[in-house]
Amino acid sequence: MWAISGGITAPQGFRAAGVACGIKAKGGLDLALIVSDTPASAAAVFTTNKAIAAPVIVSRRQLAASGGRVSAVVVNSGCANACTGPDGLAHAASMTALTSAALGCEPSAVLVASTGVIGVKLDMTKVQSGITSASAALARTGGGDAALAIMTTDPFPKEASVEVETPAGNFRVGGIAKGSGMIEPNMATMLGFVTIDAHLEPALLQRALKAAVDDTFNAITVDGECSTNDCVFALANGASAVRLSENDYSVLVEALKGVCKPLAVGIVRGGEGATKLVTVRVVGAASGVDARRTARAIANSLLVKTAIHGGDPNWGRLIAVAGRSGSDFVLERAAVRIGPVELFSDGAPHDERADDAAAYLQAKDIVVEVDLGTGGAGRSEMWTCDLSAEYVRINAEYRT
Amino acid sequence: MWAISGGITAPQGFRAAGVACGIKAKGGLDLALIVSDTPASAAAVFTTNKAIAAPVIVSRRQLAASGGRVSAVVVNSGCANACTGPDGLAHAASMTALTSAALGCEPSAVLVASTGVIGVKLDMTKVQSGITSASAALARTGGGDAALAIMTTDPFPKEASVEVETPAGNFRVGGIAKGSGMIEPNMATMLGFVTIDAHLEPALLQRALKAAVDDTFNAITVDGECSTNDCVFALANGASAVRLSENDYSVLVEALKGVCKPLAVGIVRGGEGATKLVTVRVVGAASGVDARRTARAIANSLLVKTAIHGGDPNWGRLIAVAGRSGSDFVLERAAVRIGPVELFSDGAPHDERADDAAAYLQAKDIVVEVDLGTGGAGRSEMWTCDLSAEYVRINAEYRT
Repeated sequence: MWAISGGITAPQGFRAAGVACGIKAKGGLDLALIVSDTPASAAAVFTTNKAIAAPVIVSRRQLAASGGRVSAVVVNSGCANACTGPDGLAHAASMTALTSAALGCEPSAVLVASTGVIGVKLDMTKVQSGITSASAALARTGGGDAALAIMTTDPFPKEASVEVETPAGNFRVGGIAKGSGMIEPNMATMLGFVTIDAHLEPALLQRALKAAVDDTFNAITVDGECSTNDCVFALANGASAVRLSENDYSVLVEALKGVCKPLAVGIVRGGEGATKLVTVRVVGAASGVDARRTARAIANSLLVKTAIHGGDPNWGRLIAVAGRSGSDFVLERAAVRIGPVELFSDGAPHDERADDAAAYLQAKDIVVEVDLGTGGAGRSEMWTCDLSAEYVRINAEYRT
Repeated sequence: MWAISGGITAPQGFRAAGVACGIKAKGGLDLALIVSDTPASAAAVFTTNKAIAAPVIVSRRQLAASGGRVSAVVVNSGCANACTGPDGLAHAASMTALTSAALGCEPSAVLVASTGVIGVKLDMTKVQSGITSASAALARTGGGDAALAIMTTDPFPKEASVEVETPAGNFRVGGIAKGSGMIEPNMATMLGFVTIDAHLEPALLQRALKAAVDDTFNAITVDGECSTNDCVFALANGASAVRLSENDYSVLVEALKGVCKPLAVGIVRGGEGATKLVTVRVVGAASGVDARRTARAIANSLLVKTAIHGGDPNWGRLIAVAGRSGSDFVLERAAVRIGPVELFSDGAPHDERADDAAAYLQAKDIVVEVDLGTGGAGRSEMWTCDLSAEYVRINAEYRT
């Protein structure tokens, strides 16, 4: 498996477009279309938020109605179409109907996603003109525009694509994602779209997508939130010669991770106000569940995130968060490592190494590791960013 | 019950002092002593953090060894004596021994607490001189100095005291507290000390203290953290003529809340970088547990706290947090109120009222209320503060 260019349109048989139709008050691309030349097997992972947005409800229905055979995904940014009542549901359904009419595909073969401010209704005149323009603009090279058109406060677009070698030939996986604040496990205000040109059944794709998302999109956090609109969609159209079956499950999961991980890490790197990418590693846990719980607590800790922002090797905050995270924890055998520098071990600090750790913290990519000291084999990795005053500025001024 | 002055020395038979002994690098009062003229019934609520600090371990032992009969509490700020290994335990024990020697009380009758940076050992020469000076400075008017001496990054001291009328005569309750960042339920880096001049048994005091703490100190949050050192101690010395028994349980809990609530709210009001005190009220929950869970999620949400900081009546963030909090939630019957302004009800926004809500958010004391829409009777209140860029600055620069 190796990285290639092209993003979501790198796999064969997919076209995409991103256009500006005036939904974003500030202008810019705000409507994306991703289309497979032939009906594709589809899978989806949705938000766990109970305040579920209209496009999520409609996409669930479409997946069920189509039997997991999907031709297109239509996405708008600038308006989440969440908390918009019956009108919002009608608007989301209308987005799929307008798209199927423009493309001449089955009405049930279109999924829809929205991101932006909550509680504002879509201007369907703008959306309709956007769908018309995007249908006309669809291109094999359109992945880049689609990546731009799904952004909200993201500082840069997120694209990734890989080629995977198999005995039956090569296949490709591509993807785009957006998300900036309100990111946590369970995919808070995060959208991800993945295309695959191998042939495989919807049920296999669904299992593999869930597994890949758990270790990538669900292993990142910016601010611990989980939104009303999160979803990751995957389409597999079989345009390559490669057919994947149950026996290829691991290959498939690794291929999906090969795209989802750089997208997920890109979301964190572009987190609101973020200046550093932080890998949080927890080892020595009594179980994998304990490890993930503590990793999540550390990755969401304001005190840890502000200390890293300030370049302060404050291992005490890591120990304190590990201690309150609810996981088994043995202080006398616990350890904290900031990059290669062990600052705490066997119940005692090594503050004489603080200068080395402070120097390490000047880097952009930081690894912090906590050993919970239980002697267990449980381990987990999550990705987060530091917390800056800029995050506060962005989120205190988002609407006003 | 009415408020009186005097703080922790308002109740009869208590003396206190606060002195500077050089533990705080920047200078200032850093050692407090609270003494009862006669052995008092004692109770304590401790941190639930598993990375437990030495003074917590020692105070637990002392409470057990003394059978809940305590004469004094010694407290230092500037150094948490946490993650300090066997030396730290010896130092905490030594603080109680030095205090009992200076006061001539039972060795087991002294509790100890520490707050400050984690992982740094106490300079026992300084501590010893501090205990000597504080013993000499003990006074009936010493509550104010004690309140100052337990502060770390607190912007102001927290004191409260009340007088309670009973058929058998009046008794008094007084208290001091510290805490600024790292505050959450379970009392993160929060210390609280309460004195009572009524006579009551340790077991009754323990139950009443736990109940009062649950609705006050454990109902506040600044940043969702829970520290290694948190504790609330209560001493009841019987110096008034009033004896409280099982029948007086409600009176006792209300009296304790009468002191603990203003102290807890004071901690939030003085939260690191805080500019507003926010009361989060959740109603219409399926259970009290659900209500508290959602109130806590809202009170800790960066998106909610930054929106309030910016004066943005962003009801969508409140709905989104309620939806992801894990509690039962019915969007179609949910409601959001910012002060008196209902911005969302029956599944629909009322953005025409946004200007009224924005005007309300200019105040210093804010109430936000979310109805989870289940029709249940579960309700809960928590207190939090807004999140400012100043919080980030304080916590990015705490040690460096």
